[in-house]
Amino acid sequence: MSTTQEQTGWLSSEDLHSARERLPIVYVDAVPVRIDDAGRVTEVGLLLRARPDGTISRAVVSGRVQYGERIRDALIRHLEKDLGPVALPRIPVSPAPFTVIEYFPSPEVSGFHDPRQHAVSLAFVVPVAGDCRPQQDALDLVWMSPDEAVSDAVISEMTGGQDRLVRLALAYSGELP
Amino acid sequence: MSTTQEQTGWLSSEDLHSARERLPIVYVDAVPVRIDDAGRVTEVGLLLRARPDGTISRAVVSGRVQYGERIRDALIRHLEKDLGPVALPRIPVSPAPFTVIEYFPSPEVSGFHDPRQHAVSLAFVVPVAGDCRPQQDALDLVWMSPDEAVSDAVISEMTGGQDRLVRLALAYSGELP
Amino acid sequence: MSTTQEQTGWLSSEDLHSARERLPIVYVDAVPVRIDDAGRVTEVGLLLRARPDGTISRAVVSGRVQYGERIRDALIRHLEKDLGPVALPRIPVSPAPFTVIEYFPSPEVSGFHDPRQHAVSLAFVVPVAGDCRPQQDALDLVWMSPDEAVSDAVISEMTGGQDRLVRLALAYSGELP
Amino acid sequence: MSTTQEQTGWLSSEDLHSARERLPIVYVDAVPVRIDDAGRVTEVGLLLRARPDGTISRAVVSGRVQYGERIRDALIRHLEKDLGPVALPRIPVSPAPFTVIEYFPSPEVSGFHDPRQHAVSLAFVVPVAGDCRPQQDALDLVWMSPDEAVSDAVISEMTGGQDRLVRLALAYSGELP
Repeated sequence: MSTTQEQTGWLSSEDLHSARERLPIVYVDAVPVRIDDAGRVTEVGLLLRARPDGTISRAVVSGRVQYGERIRDALIRHLEKDLGPVALPRIPVSPAPFTVIEYFPSPEVSGFHDPRQHAVSLAFVVPVAGDCRPQQDALDLVWMSPDEAVSDAVISEMTGGQDRLVRLALAYSGELP
Repeated sequence: MSTTQEQTGWLSSEDLHSARERLPIVYVDAVPVRIDDAGRVTEVGLLLRARPDGTISRAVVSGRVQYGERIRDALIRHLEKDLGPVALPRIPVSPAPFTVIEYFPSPEVSGFHDPRQHAVSLAFVVPVAGDCRPQQDALDLVWMSPDEAVSDAVISEMTGGQDRLVRLALAYSGELP
Repeated sequence: MSTTQEQTGWLSSEDLHSARERLPIVYVDAVPVRIDDAGRVTEVGLLLRARPDGTISRAVVSGRVQYGERIRDALIRHLEKDLGPVALPRIPVSPAPFTVIEYFPSPEVSGFHDPRQHAVSLAFVVPVAGDCRPQQDALDLVWMSPDEAVSDAVISEMTGGQDRLVRLALAYSGELP
Repeated sequence: MSTTQEQTGWLSSEDLHSARERLPIVYVDAVPVRIDDAGRVTEVGLLLRARPDGTISRAVVSGRVQYGERIRDALIRHLEKDLGPVALPRIPVSPAPFTVIEYFPSPEVSGFHDPRQHAVSLAFVVPVAGDCRPQQDALDLVWMSPDEAVSDAVISEMTGGQDRLVRLALAYSGELP
């Protein structure tokens, strides 16, 4: 999850900080993928970024849903923020996420960890058809095959449960090795 | 959505009121159903209750997810609150809701209306195997067939999009007439 | 379901006829939709065609899966057959259908009726981005809003449960009126 | 997939053999699980059995859907056949499988292998609440934690893609380690 949206929401940083100690926060996670003509996932996109746990590590697109904002619009906003304006994301037809990720300040509760907050994140697999360029606080974007994405080397570059989220996304897509 | 959980959460009513004006609130909706041995929905349970819009109308089980609470535990808590302690709900295996309902203070945004807040609600169909008795602010509980549940008479007793939520639940179950 | 694929499969018409009396046949149903940039369904596409029950009525894209054929490839093949070669269908990422339709020779069993056979059909909602022209035995293709698609007038033009299939697809998409 | 249902179906073994060379066959796969009160998977059940590839290996419940049979009834029949009459399976509410497994005579096509046939299998996660005893050609049944079920030792006891099917089921349940 990014650290910059705190300035872009409808809350001051201070108010958000206060709310984060008392309410679960609504998030979206988007796993960007490249697909072939038959809809099969051929590549997964992983960003490199400063993460809330203080590491610089691999992660998917993620961010907060604002007051009054539709889930679909939050997905587009965060995909554009991280992948740039011409990524051409294909937001899924169904409003139901493929899974729900529950991030907790303690890493033990669910295995998904965000030291800042309790976040309930709706997770989607989002094919992107256009040109992707990491934006803002994303330092880098790499595309890798499903096999690479679940390799020990890549898993070791992910923290807070992001590696599990990638495996869940590949399983949903029928492409978990 | 119930009006009593405001006293039972981890926030004062005042703080919750303030948060509701600035952040989407995480909810769960549970559509209680009776099923046969083959898992087929035979009946839908609808509560009669005072609703946030001031009406007394038919509704499904619903409520807020608290800070630090797992989605599964929030489902159990709200099902027990509304249906009593021996309803024996069968919480689904998958953490993914069958749909996401976005409630807004304005009825026009999504057709799902909650004058108090912007709520993002994870909706589940939950078979209940035990004895159900409406509790707390639920005045009544009726079980009805899928055909009845989508009849004009019953739809006219629902507000804020609850009738649509019931139809979405029946469609997911393969039993939309 | 179309009547022409009998000539195009890997079975003689006679062999297929014989198998149809003894085995459930694997089918795919594809509900073609137009979506906006946020993935929201704006229109549903309904074909006009000669149906197995002898009527000429409204229906979605449908057809048999051949021996050795992947589900994804069967979807593409039938979409191209009915909508033409430049419809640009976006086959979903997940191999799981949004529902399974069980067609039976008797209309009473499931409400989904195919006088020729017991078919188990994997149903998908498929956004199409290109130019659609009805092909082969499809006489016509009309695009209509979700409201129109569930109107009494349009429902009266559908047989064998096709109207219910359209409602299930809209419910899955969060756009059932 | 079991080898005994050939005698119990509505086809002679010879006819089924012939159909298997020309049509995809409809199957169901059921991954039996133990769950806690909150619906969380705590254990996965794996059978030991003679498999179509000639091995004796670990596998989930699986079998053919017969002509005229509903998917739900096929699930119950195969669960009873393999786990005994008092397993008390809880067939899911939704008719949609969590994934579709495509078994092919060639192991290369999809990674799911059945030397006898092209089978299209609807896969479900099925909680069982009762007493399970392996029946008929199932030699043994073991319950194991999600961690054990994806361990190298257990994976080495599975063939034809059964280990991947177990991982997909755990991912759907949110319990993939």
